[in-house]
Amino acid sequence: MEKMNMVKLAKELNLSVSTVSKALLDSHEISAKTKERVIELAKKYNYKPNKFASSLRKGKSKFIAVIIPEINNNFFSIVVDSINSFAANKEYDLLVYLTHEKLISEISVMEHLEISRVDGIIMSLCSQTKTYDHIIKFQKDTELPIVFFDRVTTLEDFPRIITNNYESAFEATMHLFKQGSKIPFYLYSSELNYINKERHRGFRDAMIRNGIEETESHCVQCADDWEINYSIIYNLLSSENPPDAIFASIEKLAITVYEVAKDLNFKIPQQLKVISFSNLRTAALLSPSLSTVSQPAFEMGEQSVKLLFKMIEKKFYKNANDIITINSKLDFRDSTKNSK
Amino acid sequence: MEKMNMVKLAKELNLSVSTVSKALLDSHEISAKTKERVIELAKKYNYKPNKFASSLRKGKSKFIAVIIPEINNNFFSIVVDSINSFAANKEYDLLVYLTHEKLISEISVMEHLEISRVDGIIMSLCSQTKTYDHIIKFQKDTELPIVFFDRVTTLEDFPRIITNNYESAFEATMHLFKQGSKIPFYLYSSELNYINKERHRGFRDAMIRNGIEETESHCVQCADDWEINYSIIYNLLSSENPPDAIFASIEKLAITVYEVAKDLNFKIPQQLKVISFSNLRTAALLSPSLSTVSQPAFEMGEQSVKLLFKMIEKKFYKNANDIITINSKLDFRDSTKNSK
Repeated sequence: MEKMNMVKLAKELNLSVSTVSKALLDSHEISAKTKERVIELAKKYNYKPNKFASSLRKGKSKFIAVIIPEINNNFFSIVVDSINSFAANKEYDLLVYLTHEKLISEISVMEHLEISRVDGIIMSLCSQTKTYDHIIKFQKDTELPIVFFDRVTTLEDFPRIITNNYESAFEATMHLFKQGSKIPFYLYSSELNYINKERHRGFRDAMIRNGIEETESHCVQCADDWEINYSIIYNLLSSENPPDAIFASIEKLAITVYEVAKDLNFKIPQQLKVISFSNLRTAALLSPSLSTVSQPAFEMGEQSVKLLFKMIEKKFYKNANDIITINSKLDFRDSTKNSK
Repeated sequence: MEKMNMVKLAKELNLSVSTVSKALLDSHEISAKTKERVIELAKKYNYKPNKFASSLRKGKSKFIAVIIPEINNNFFSIVVDSINSFAANKEYDLLVYLTHEKLISEISVMEHLEISRVDGIIMSLCSQTKTYDHIIKFQKDTELPIVFFDRVTTLEDFPRIITNNYESAFEATMHLFKQGSKIPFYLYSSELNYINKERHRGFRDAMIRNGIEETESHCVQCADDWEINYSIIYNLLSSENPPDAIFASIEKLAITVYEVAKDLNFKIPQQLKVISFSNLRTAALLSPSLSTVSQPAFEMGEQSVKLLFKMIEKKFYKNANDIITINSKLDFRDSTKNSK
């Protein structure tokens, strides 16, 4: 069957396109009798008005954009799952953009969204983002609501959904000392973002609390690349004074620590204790089971999308500089067992 | 600053909206001088034409929809990552829909897409899908190109990107026998879909090859729910004649087998060998390391999106009943070690 459109419908009904369009949108300007005629013929041809065309008229696209560094990552995939559930309830569709930790991709996605049409954005910054000019410009040009989660800006005027990074990092490091570590190290992947600074600060304060004032040599910056990280960790564990404990700021660094330890025949936890921020489904099944700080991924997604909908409905982004903190959960397992 | 739109631009320039619109689209109908005036004023107000409005005129939305059962799953998140990379190169945006293994969600997403505007669909069926009426209807009404991957239809006229399910399942089961198993079991989560039938058939043929003709009592159907699966597997391993090997058709069943074995103090591989279809990043780090059949997730995503773009460009969906098979990779690890 030939594809139907509004022009063909109008022609067959001997009505204007505008009348047909208004009838299909149930406009009060159109008589009940005309609406009936239009709907009947539309049904006959199985014609449904184009969502985009109709959303253009209504002023809402019913799309939200989710901009994240990666999707093949337990934390982010749970967040997307969560956002999806709540968005679907409100008949919103998700546009998913991945930056792959590249600032150039993040900027290009935002430029693209300037001329696209979404009702709001939920976003977690890539690891290279150190300044926020592209975000300030986007906000000024589009006036669209944006909610940041996890890797947030430090800019005011943007609502942020975060976890208690400082306290969790402090507790995790204190736990390493309590389990017998003398020289814990902190592994992280990017220098300047807000959550990493908080985790860094938590690590440092726990070190100072345990009498170690010089902490910078205990903090090792890694990369976004598996091979580079493998060699950084390999060199660290093969060095003359290797760490006796590692606190990893992200899950993939902990996995690489396990891989290197296996290859070097380094015993976890006897020679090396490991704890990590992680949402790994198999943490308890690893050899040995991995102690984790789990971020509340599902709840963070839920709060992000609920806040975004509030902003879309009330258009109050300028006052929405809320910070919502949802606590992480510490699970101590065999990888930090006291081996004495 | 007040938000600019085409109507305001047209007013200030004393031109018609249509002229402004055509000028911004660089139409040959508009003089160079007028274009210059329009672009200059648009720049002054930092006005960029709306992507959707302009795509409506051009006849392409530059959106593709990806419909998958879940995103918090290594296989599907790698596929989405892969589709995203290739789509971004062509300046296409991804709409991601999750069915959470519910047929009712799958149908509702397809109904929704009938009135939305996407240029094509990449899809993997949910576990409840046993008939294809909603897909046939969608195809007839919209004439949009659809590529299926992994969990595909058996309908002709739809291109399918799959892996060698039969051969992989056969090899995996043969491996269990070779490693000393006498009574391997097959665990799967949904009965009637195409790939499960293929895996089932591979298992059965390997059983017959090893002299076991009655295979149905060795095939255990599980669910989409962790608790139900836990109790099914718990009962199986606690039964009078427990299996000495398990071939799991999906990763999460293998993880649950590990969890139950741990709780029951069942030794893998001494008492129970385990092999599974899986894209688990940590398979080699589990206790014990898990033998896997890894599907080529990234390549399957790549082939799906490349084929979809070919269909979008050439509009030849009716002839595109291609089946592209990309082989899986078997990695034998400690979970299937011969313990004799």
